Amino acid sequence: MTRTAPAETPLGDSFHVFDTTLRDGAQREGITYSLADKFAVARLLDEVGVGFIEGGWPGALPTDTEFFARAAAGELTLRHAALVAFGATRRPGTKVTEDQQVAALLASQAPVVTLVAKSDVRHIERALRTDVAEACAMVRDTVSFLVERGRRVFLDAEHFFDGFAHDPDCALRVLAAAMESGADVAVLCDTNGGQLPLALADTVGEVVARTGYRVGIHCQDDTGCAVANSVAAVQAGATHVQCTANGYGERAGNADLFAVVGNLVTKLGMPVIPTASVPELSRVSHALAEIANLAPDTHQAYVGASAFAHKAGLHASAIKVDPLLYNHIDPEVVGNDMRVLVTEMAGQASLELKGRELGVDLAGQPAVLTSAVRRVKELESRGWSFEAADASLELLLRRELEESSVDSPPFTLESYRVILDHRLDGVIVSEATVKVHVAGTRVIATAEGNGPVHALDAALRQALSPYLPWLADVRLSDYKVRILADRPGTDAVTRVLVESTDREHEWTTVGVHGNIVEASWLALCDALAHKAMRVEAASVSR
Amino acid sequence: MTRTAPAETPLGDSFHVFDTTLRDGAQREGITYSLADKFAVARLLDEVGVGFIEGGWPGALPTDTEFFARAAAGELTLRHAALVAFGATRRPGTKVTEDQQVAALLASQAPVVTLVAKSDVRHIERALRTDVAEACAMVRDTVSFLVERGRRVFLDAEHFFDGFAHDPDCALRVLAAAMESGADVAVLCDTNGGQLPLALADTVGEVVARTGYRVGIHCQDDTGCAVANSVAAVQAGATHVQCTANGYGERAGNADLFAVVGNLVTKLGMPVIPTASVPELSRVSHALAEIANLAPDTHQAYVGASAFAHKAGLHASAIKVDPLLYNHIDPEVVGNDMRVLVTEMAGQASLELKGRELGVDLAGQPAVLTSAVRRVKELESRGWSFEAADASLELLLRRELEESSVDSPPFTLESYRVILDHRLDGVIVSEATVKVHVAGTRVIATAEGNGPVHALDAALRQALSPYLPWLADVRLSDYKVRILADRPGTDAVTRVLVESTDREHEWTTVGVHGNIVEASWLALCDALAHKAMRVEAASVSR
Repeated sequence: MTRTAPAETPLGDSFHVFDTTLRDGAQREGITYSLADKFAVARLLDEVGVGFIEGGWPGALPTDTEFFARAAAGELTLRHAALVAFGATRRPGTKVTEDQQVAALLASQAPVVTLVAKSDVRHIERALRTDVAEACAMVRDTVSFLVERGRRVFLDAEHFFDGFAHDPDCALRVLAAAMESGADVAVLCDTNGGQLPLALADTVGEVVARTGYRVGIHCQDDTGCAVANSVAAVQAGATHVQCTANGYGERAGNADLFAVVGNLVTKLGMPVIPTASVPELSRVSHALAEIANLAPDTHQAYVGASAFAHKAGLHASAIKVDPLLYNHIDPEVVGNDMRVLVTEMAGQASLELKGRELGVDLAGQPAVLTSAVRRVKELESRGWSFEAADASLELLLRRELEESSVDSPPFTLESYRVILDHRLDGVIVSEATVKVHVAGTRVIATAEGNGPVHALDAALRQALSPYLPWLADVRLSDYKVRILADRPGTDAVTRVLVESTDREHEWTTVGVHGNIVEASWLALCDALAHKAMRVEAASVSR
Repeated sequence: MTRTAPAETPLGDSFHVFDTTLRDGAQREGITYSLADKFAVARLLDEVGVGFIEGGWPGALPTDTEFFARAAAGELTLRHAALVAFGATRRPGTKVTEDQQVAALLASQAPVVTLVAKSDVRHIERALRTDVAEACAMVRDTVSFLVERGRRVFLDAEHFFDGFAHDPDCALRVLAAAMESGADVAVLCDTNGGQLPLALADTVGEVVARTGYRVGIHCQDDTGCAVANSVAAVQAGATHVQCTANGYGERAGNADLFAVVGNLVTKLGMPVIPTASVPELSRVSHALAEIANLAPDTHQAYVGASAFAHKAGLHASAIKVDPLLYNHIDPEVVGNDMRVLVTEMAGQASLELKGRELGVDLAGQPAVLTSAVRRVKELESRGWSFEAADASLELLLRRELEESSVDSPPFTLESYRVILDHRLDGVIVSEATVKVHVAGTRVIATAEGNGPVHALDAALRQALSPYLPWLADVRLSDYKVRILADRPGTDAVTRVLVESTDREHEWTTVGVHGNIVEASWLALCDALAHKAMRVEAASVSR
C-alpha cells in the first residue's frame, strides 16, 4: 500500500491540502472525466504538490472503481500526494461487514478513505430516516472497520455548520463517534455553501476549542465566499483544507485550490505546498481547464490570464515606476505574468512594456515607439482594439521595426466573392471564391461553408494548402464579433476577434471594417501572417 | 439637479448599494460600453434598485462626458438611484479652480461625485511625487469646492488597507481631510485586492471606532475574496458598499453586486434594495452580461444558471423530500430556479410573471403556458436566449395565444441572396436581393449596403416600404453577435441580438442560426413583426 500522508511538503503531515477535483469537482455540470483524464488530472495535481488526491467513489461509479484498480496495479505513481477513496458509512440497520459499498472502499486499496456522514439532525431524521444514535453507530462501525484494516480515515461531516447551529450536541456527537474510533480529521463541510467567513471562523474556532480534534474544512461557493471561508477556517484552527482545481463543483462550485493555496502561501506565509511548485500554479490551472474541456477563467484570482492585466493609462506610467504599487503580489511567484492592455488610454510607456512582454524590444528606439503609438492610436480611433489581440499587435510592432520575418506576407489577395443564398426551398447555402497569389502562382478556389466566414476560410485553405504545408495544423478555435455603434461622425464598424490554434500555440488577431466579412477576412489574414512569421523565425534560427 | 440619495429603498440613505459597473467595471478586459449600452446598463441597475450608479469619469473619457451631458438633458430618468460622477482631486501644486478635470466634474451636473485620493504614503511619494500635507490639501480643496457648489461627495481612499497597515496616521489624515471638508462617506478601497476578510474586518472596525466617520468599502477580487471582504466590512460597520454587476472589473474583477446583495439580503436580513427587486437579480445579471457581450457565468453565486443545479446522485432523493435541505436559500427569492427536478412549475411561474411584465396575460391558461414553456426550452436548447430579447419573447407568447395582432406576419419571404465582392481594385461591395410577398403582392428588390446584413435590411425596406408606411420610422440601433461554441454533437451557432427603435420605443429581438446572415435575418424579421403587431393593436384599439 502506498503512503498515507503527503511527502516532501514543508509542513509535512501537519497541514493537509486535500484536492477533490476528481470526486466533488466532477459534480460540476458539463464535466465528465474519462479514465485517461483522471490519470492526467491526478498527475498534474501531484506536480503542484497537493498532499491528498481524492480520486473518486469506488463501487459507486465504474470509472472510479477502475481508476483505483489501475492505480493499485501501479499505473499511477505519485511523488507528493496520497491517494484517497471517497465513500459513505454503512447503511442504517445493517452490518458493516455486509455493506457492499464499504467492501468496495477496502477493495480499492486506497490507503486513505474519506467517509461522508450526516451531522445535522434534520438530515439524519428526514433524509436518512434514522436517529442520532444509529447515525453515530454507522460512523463508529465504519471508521473502526477501515482503521483496523490499516486505512487512514478522514470524516466529512456533511451540513456541519447548519447542523451545529441547529443542534450542536448532535453535530459534535457525530464527530466524536468518528474521532474516538480512530479517524484522523473531522472535516467540517459547508455542504450547501451558505456560510459567510466571520461566522464560519467563529464556529471552527469553537469546535477546535471544545473538542481538541484535528479539524478540516470543505466549502462550497454558493455565497461566493468559498475561498474566503476556507482561509478563515485555517486562521481559526483548521489544518486540513479541501479544494478543487479552479473551483469546479456542483452548483456555484467549490473552493478554488489555486486561490486558497495562493492565499495561504503568499498572504499567510504558510508553505502548504512544496516551494518549487508555487510557480507551477498558473500552468497547472490552465492545463486542468483544458482536460475538463472548459475555457480557463481569464479573471480567476492568482492564475487567470487577466489576473495581473492593467487597462488604465493612469496606472501604466506608475507601474513602470514600481509594479508592486499596483499588484498585490509579484505575478511570477505563482507563474503568472503582468500584462498591460493597450487601450485608448495607453501611451509609450505601456506600449514599450507590452512589447517587452511580446518579445519585441522597443527600448532605445524612440522613433519606432513614437510611430508605433501613432499607428495604434490611429487604428483605435477607427475601432481597432489590441487589448485582446496580442498577435495582431506583435505583427504591427514587428512591421514598424521592419523585421525580416514579417517582410513578405505568406500570400496576397487579388479578390474574393461570397454568395449567400436563402433558397426557395428554405435551404441556405454559403459559397466563397478567392483569387490569391501565393509562391509566385495565381490560384483560384471556391468552397462552401456554413456561413460566409466559414466559406471564405475554407476557400482560402483550399487555395493555399498546396503551398503552405503548415496550414494543416492551424485552425480557427474561436470567433467573436462586436458591432461598434454610434461613434460620432462615423458609420458603425464591426470588430472581429479570431482565435487560432496549432498544436503548440493559441493566438488572437483582430480585424475592423464596416463590412463584417471584410473585418473577419482581415483578422484571418493576420492569423496566417502571425503563423507564417513564427515558421519563418524558426527556420532562420535552425 | 436630481436626487443625491436613493429613493424608495427600505434602508433609505442609511445604507448605500453603490454600483460602479459603468466606471470601474468598464476596466475589465474586453468590455467597451457604447453610449447606448451605458444607458441600458443604468436603467437595468436602477430596476434592481441600487442606490447609486457611478456613470463614468466625465472629462477623461469622451463617451462618459457625453453620457452625463445626455443624462442631464433628461435622457435618463432613474426611479431609485442617484447618478454619480467619478473623478480625481486637483493635481499637486495647482489651484482647484483652475483644474480642468475638476471643472468637468462640475460641468457633468452629476449630483453626487466620488473623488479618488491616495491614502498610502508610498503612493503619495512615489506615484504622485508629493508629500502628505499636499495630498491632504488636494483632498480638502476639491471636496470643499464641490460641496460648496451643492454636490454630495464620497471619498474613494485608494490603497487604504496597505496604506493603513504601513502608516495609519497618514491614511487617517487623508480621510480626515475629506470628511472635515464635507465629504459624506470615507470609502476604504482595497485597490490591489490583496486583503482577506478577518484582517479587513478588523481594520474597518478600527477605523469606524477611531474616527466615527461613515465608512464605505470597495473591494477587488485578487484573492478571490471580494464578496466575502465586502460583506465582512459591512458586518464590521461599513454602511456603503461598492460593487459591479457580475464582478466585472480590472484584473480578477470587483465585488459582484449580485452576490453581495444576495448575501446582505438573505444571510444578514438587510433590505439593502427594494423588496420587489430581489427576484429581479438573476434576470438583470444575465441582461447585463448580454450588454457587455460576455457569456453569463453559469456558476455565479445566487444568479448563475447552475447556481441551484443538482447533478443527479447522492442528493437527488433527499431533494425530493425537501429542496431546502440541499439549497442554501429558496432560489426563487433571487429569481433563479432549481434545476435538478426541472419542474415545469418553476418555468411556468416565471414565464407567467414575465408575460405579465410584457402585458401578455397567461393566467388561467395552463395549456398555453405549458406549450410556451416547452417551446422556450426547446429554443434555448438550440442556443436561443430571451433574457435580453423581450420583443421576441412577447411575439412567441402572443403566437402561442394565437392573438389576432400576430396572426398574419407583415410579409413572407420567398428567398434572398447576398453577394459580397472584394474587387480587384480593393473596393468592397455588398449587395442583397430579396423576394417577398407583402399585401398580396410578390416584390423583388435589390439594394447595396456596407455589409451583408445592412444590404439585406436595405433591400427588405425597399421591397416593403410602399406597403408598410410605418417602416420609415423604424431603424436598427444596435446589433450584437455572439458565437456559441460547439456544444457536444452540434455545430457552433451564431446568436444575433438586434435592437430597433422608432420615435417612441426601443425593442430587442433575437435570431439564432449556424449562418450569421440567417441569424441576423431572423432577428430582423422579428423586429418588424413586433412593430407590425403594435401598429395592428393600436389600430384595433382606436
